[in-house]
Amino acid sequence: MSHPTAPALSLAADPDRLLPADPGTRDIARSLLADVEQLPIISPHGHVDAAMLAQDTPFPDPATLLVTPDHYVTRLIHASGVPLDQLRMGGTTAVEPRETWRHFCMSWPLFDGTASGYWMRDSFQHVFGLDREPSAEHADALFDELDAKLQSPAFRPRSLFADFNIEVLATTDDPLDDLAAHAALAADGSFPGRVLPTFRPDAYIKFGQPDWAERVERLISLAGDGLTGHAGYLRALENRRQYFVDHGAVSADHGSRTAQTLRLEPAEASALFEKARRGEATAADADVFEAHMMYQMARMSVSDGLVMTMHPGVLRNHHTATFNGFGADTGHDIPFAVSYTEALRPMLEDFGTAAGFHFIPFTIDETVFSREIAPLAGFYPSVFIGAPWWFLDAPDAMLRFRSAVTETAGFSRSSGFIDDTRAFCSIPARHNTSRRVEAAFLARLVAERRVSEARAHEIIVDIVDAAPRRAFKL
Amino acid sequence: MSHPTAPALSLAADPDRLLPADPGTRDIARSLLADVEQLPIISPHGHVDAAMLAQDTPFPDPATLLVTPDHYVTRLIHASGVPLDQLRMGGTTAVEPRETWRHFCMSWPLFDGTASGYWMRDSFQHVFGLDREPSAEHADALFDELDAKLQSPAFRPRSLFADFNIEVLATTDDPLDDLAAHAALAADGSFPGRVLPTFRPDAYIKFGQPDWAERVERLISLAGDGLTGHAGYLRALENRRQYFVDHGAVSADHGSRTAQTLRLEPAEASALFEKARRGEATAADADVFEAHMMYQMARMSVSDGLVMTMHPGVLRNHHTATFNGFGADTGHDIPFAVSYTEALRPMLEDFGTAAGFHFIPFTIDETVFSREIAPLAGFYPSVFIGAPWWFLDAPDAMLRFRSAVTETAGFSRSSGFIDDTRAFCSIPARHNTSRRVEAAFLARLVAERRVSEARAHEIIVDIVDAAPRRAFKL
Amino acid sequence: MSHPTAPALSLAADPDRLLPADPGTRDIARSLLADVEQLPIISPHGHVDAAMLAQDTPFPDPATLLVTPDHYVTRLIHASGVPLDQLRMGGTTAVEPRETWRHFCMSWPLFDGTASGYWMRDSFQHVFGLDREPSAEHADALFDELDAKLQSPAFRPRSLFADFNIEVLATTDDPLDDLAAHAALAADGSFPGRVLPTFRPDAYIKFGQPDWAERVERLISLAGDGLTGHAGYLRALENRRQYFVDHGAVSADHGSRTAQTLRLEPAEASALFEKARRGEATAADADVFEAHMMYQMARMSVSDGLVMTMHPGVLRNHHTATFNGFGADTGHDIPFAVSYTEALRPMLEDFGTAAGFHFIPFTIDETVFSREIAPLAGFYPSVFIGAPWWFLDAPDAMLRFRSAVTETAGFSRSSGFIDDTRAFCSIPARHNTSRRVEAAFLARLVAERRVSEARAHEIIVDIVDAAPRRAFKL
Repeated sequence: MSHPTAPALSLAADPDRLLPADPGTRDIARSLLADVEQLPIISPHGHVDAAMLAQDTPFPDPATLLVTPDHYVTRLIHASGVPLDQLRMGGTTAVEPRETWRHFCMSWPLFDGTASGYWMRDSFQHVFGLDREPSAEHADALFDELDAKLQSPAFRPRSLFADFNIEVLATTDDPLDDLAAHAALAADGSFPGRVLPTFRPDAYIKFGQPDWAERVERLISLAGDGLTGHAGYLRALENRRQYFVDHGAVSADHGSRTAQTLRLEPAEASALFEKARRGEATAADADVFEAHMMYQMARMSVSDGLVMTMHPGVLRNHHTATFNGFGADTGHDIPFAVSYTEALRPMLEDFGTAAGFHFIPFTIDETVFSREIAPLAGFYPSVFIGAPWWFLDAPDAMLRFRSAVTETAGFSRSSGFIDDTRAFCSIPARHNTSRRVEAAFLARLVAERRVSEARAHEIIVDIVDAAPRRAFKL
Repeated sequence: MSHPTAPALSLAADPDRLLPADPGTRDIARSLLADVEQLPIISPHGHVDAAMLAQDTPFPDPATLLVTPDHYVTRLIHASGVPLDQLRMGGTTAVEPRETWRHFCMSWPLFDGTASGYWMRDSFQHVFGLDREPSAEHADALFDELDAKLQSPAFRPRSLFADFNIEVLATTDDPLDDLAAHAALAADGSFPGRVLPTFRPDAYIKFGQPDWAERVERLISLAGDGLTGHAGYLRALENRRQYFVDHGAVSADHGSRTAQTLRLEPAEASALFEKARRGEATAADADVFEAHMMYQMARMSVSDGLVMTMHPGVLRNHHTATFNGFGADTGHDIPFAVSYTEALRPMLEDFGTAAGFHFIPFTIDETVFSREIAPLAGFYPSVFIGAPWWFLDAPDAMLRFRSAVTETAGFSRSSGFIDDTRAFCSIPARHNTSRRVEAAFLARLVAERRVSEARAHEIIVDIVDAAPRRAFKL
Repeated sequence: MSHPTAPALSLAADPDRLLPADPGTRDIARSLLADVEQLPIISPHGHVDAAMLAQDTPFPDPATLLVTPDHYVTRLIHASGVPLDQLRMGGTTAVEPRETWRHFCMSWPLFDGTASGYWMRDSFQHVFGLDREPSAEHADALFDELDAKLQSPAFRPRSLFADFNIEVLATTDDPLDDLAAHAALAADGSFPGRVLPTFRPDAYIKFGQPDWAERVERLISLAGDGLTGHAGYLRALENRRQYFVDHGAVSADHGSRTAQTLRLEPAEASALFEKARRGEATAADADVFEAHMMYQMARMSVSDGLVMTMHPGVLRNHHTATFNGFGADTGHDIPFAVSYTEALRPMLEDFGTAAGFHFIPFTIDETVFSREIAPLAGFYPSVFIGAPWWFLDAPDAMLRFRSAVTETAGFSRSSGFIDDTRAFCSIPARHNTSRRVEAAFLARLVAERRVSEARAHEIIVDIVDAAPRRAFKL
């Protein structure tokens, strides 16, 4: 083994990074990885801005691109004692970007062993071609080197998009978005991939969201076909979903608080809806209405074919003072336990075997993988097992996921990897990490004589390439 | 390592299947496995039909034997899009068995990496002597080959029972079963093993079960010693338990909804009982009564010596339309989180240290292994740790189980493996899988110098052979 | 690999014990372990008696030292069928210590694979220099050998304290303790380490504790500055905390039932307090008051700088008959599921980013490591991830812990190891076990090319030495 005597090689450049330590298993993993490492990227769920691609907007400086907007990164720096205004969070300008970059470089050792650390190291190596890791000593030089690169044409979004070999990239969009950027990209013959919108109606469903009543008012008036109240609301959502379908959308995504679904009588739903419009709804009312709307979203998916994805179980903005000072997505969204078996039942009772319905639950509660999600996906043709997501989209967590679901549900019921990222430059690193972990997991099954090597070569291609196409109807 | 160059060898024929990849650890595992691989099978909990053995009923065609009744198998095929009537579920005859078999063969790749896949591959190799895996191409030929074998005397139940080297096989029986088949087998000097009944009173305890009131009426009138109401009900259960004891039963099994136990006053219990007989009980009443009856079953176990086993935490028949069309045990029983610490307390307060009382909780919620089950079994002499069960009776899950419980409770507090199967032909495969996993786990502890190799050789025999005898009083 | 041919070597003497099996990974682990194996012990939380060290009290016989007081040990012996009076629990004297020792020696095989087994074997080898393991055959000889050693000066507490290379040892103390033993040790220039008190006010906070009202009365009258009622109670706690600070305390520990915290209005808190003093409080009242007090303890920690540690989620004294007969800490404290995300929010909303505040939750519910604890500690500068504790302070559990938290929170947010033990002689074994497991975990990350070997050498020193100093302000 040459590793211990090869200290100068950057980890991100090591062809065996993230592969198993056992030499025999590693050999198998290498061979499996070779099948998929160069396949195009399919990214069916994420948060990249379509307008940036349509307009080929140049990226800003390194700190503004790589640090400030990535709450995976800022959170650990904050935990180490750096105030968020030093990271220019929430639009604050207390310091210059260079100073934020210095904080990041000083904090680089915090990221050892973390998912963010793997991605950043991989991006620095393979996207930006750096030959050294961040450090306090070289912070300024690194800033200048990256800044210069970011101003060059090769680092414009469209150039990187082509370099990254992205075949499909889904964005996440407001139901009233006109999807002009998506239309422009679709009409642009020179653009090398598909950029698809995703219908995300959370802000129109959750009573507690800022300006909920105003949003709903606008939704109904713009798309309700002249209907009013709850009926107009449902009609408007149906219409906007169809607009998304017409613009290439394949899925609708839901950040519901829990996984609860409910089949409510129209009168009851309408009464809740009006109560909320009067500003009188309680938190419990909001939960019931959201559960009702998850059921309605499934009903609409059965009708219009949009894949329904769900990301429940996160308490958003845990620290109110931080939210007030710096806004949402600032690192303090904290998971909690969510149950699916009873919660999804009303929806699955009615739509679980409906032709063409696809439902993908993503969870950050690992305990449900073997207990609830794999058994559900192992029976219902509509249920696909969402890939590990957020806090769990990291090597060990992915291995635990595969170990937890495979023995019950095999490989065919998975959604495939999603990167779910706003950090465009990290997309190749995330997909590469996922492919390495899949190779590592399968290599173990081969080495333990559970799966034949021939089948493992088929399975890894299925997992990486066919699974997301199948689950997301691509 | 010869594996990568030996592609023609079937995985099921590989002597190292399921053993660890690390060569040094695998050597240890091989040596440990050799101690136990040929030991007789002790199966203290399962669902084989005693009459089939008593009458040596020939097996039906391959699909009717191996596919249709095994909801481990049918569920994944269903999830892939095959309607249950294509699998002849629930007594339907929409297609011929050969067509069902074709569906199975086409679906064979779905089972890679699953527990069912391991068992089926192992059975095909070692029970049926097949030299190729199922495939769409060979489906018909395979059907004919298996069908011919199944009609031969060597594949009659009694012949296989002897081949399988089964020493003890427990069935699961209705409290009013006359146990004639068991008696016939016990009286038959030519039969090579013990077939024991198990007392399973769920249908007489759960208010919501079909025909609960009629069943209870019949129970009391047949075995209540002339007593009526709740007192007659308890007396009848005591009497029927004794009848089972007299016919060789060693355990009573309970598929309770949760693990809750309650010490109810007789008047309160009686009132609930009468409310249910009038058809007025709520779901909450049913839960309370079941908890009361779990306490009563423990009390009776202390008195009559039957080991009490519990299998809680499954929401049965999640999809009502499927249940209505195809009945129970059709693949949509879905686990949910269950807590044990508080729930078992009323029962353990009173009987936890009672002489001779044995209580074995089985769970499909992995989270309780280290948190609740191992600590309980590490103190109470009556509590044995149920083996991984259903969805968890697979290699990785078994390894997680051992890792979760051993550091707290050692090896002495385990129940030993149960196969819990209706699939008679899979019994050797399941026990062999378990023995391989135990060898793999222990080999790691030896390789990491946690347990001496000498002790590991003692422990594996204890786990495989002595533990089930000890826990189930065999 | 020489292991299989070296059967005579005791496992505890094996330099590779607890290190990974893969030869390449083991080499890396050895090298990492060498960095930290000889570092001084920092034990920031435990239950050793300071007076024993101050007075250098000779240890009693082997059974009374090593068996009877260690409920990790007695519980498994009890589960195997030995009544607690045979172990001289709860002050009983039904048998002589030698007889208790015989029970222990006969039970020795129960401990294979358990944390207690590792610690005892290690202590026998490295503290007591035994050359054979306990066995029924040698029980008496072993008793005599140990007994003789325990009477020698080399086995007095102060001599062992120096041998163990303990730099810091924290005890756990009643708020009204005069801390005379701590003062004596601090004043004793010949004593080689720091022995720090820890403020543990459970008995004054939990309404259900024996003599709660009397304790509170005494607390207020002794330290309430003349104030009465709830105000006097809070003042007295503040004063006693300051007394602990003045005697070197760095932390306050809380064995709360759950992790709940609440910001109560003073009038409401006072009303609950008075209700409890009148003996009228319910269990629900007790929970609310405890949650209120956890908030108050955090507030005081912000003010006086004591690190706040929390050990929730254990149902104490599960078996009342055993508690009545033998008292607390007799092996039947059983964990249950605890959630942190919502529960800690009231406290973290107000103090989560307060300067200098350190909060360390310890849990025995593994499911919260990746789901709740790591995300909280990955954002809040005040939250450190408590080391695996009780039932989880064992090799596999520690590895699961590191795997669960590292990818989200890295290595910088951990509290470092705590031994939390009453068993003074097991302290070196516990810390050595922890160091070996940290080396094993990091070695895997190096072997899988996730962390550079150079960084791993820095990280292991940080984990073992710097982390507890940082988290506990040492």
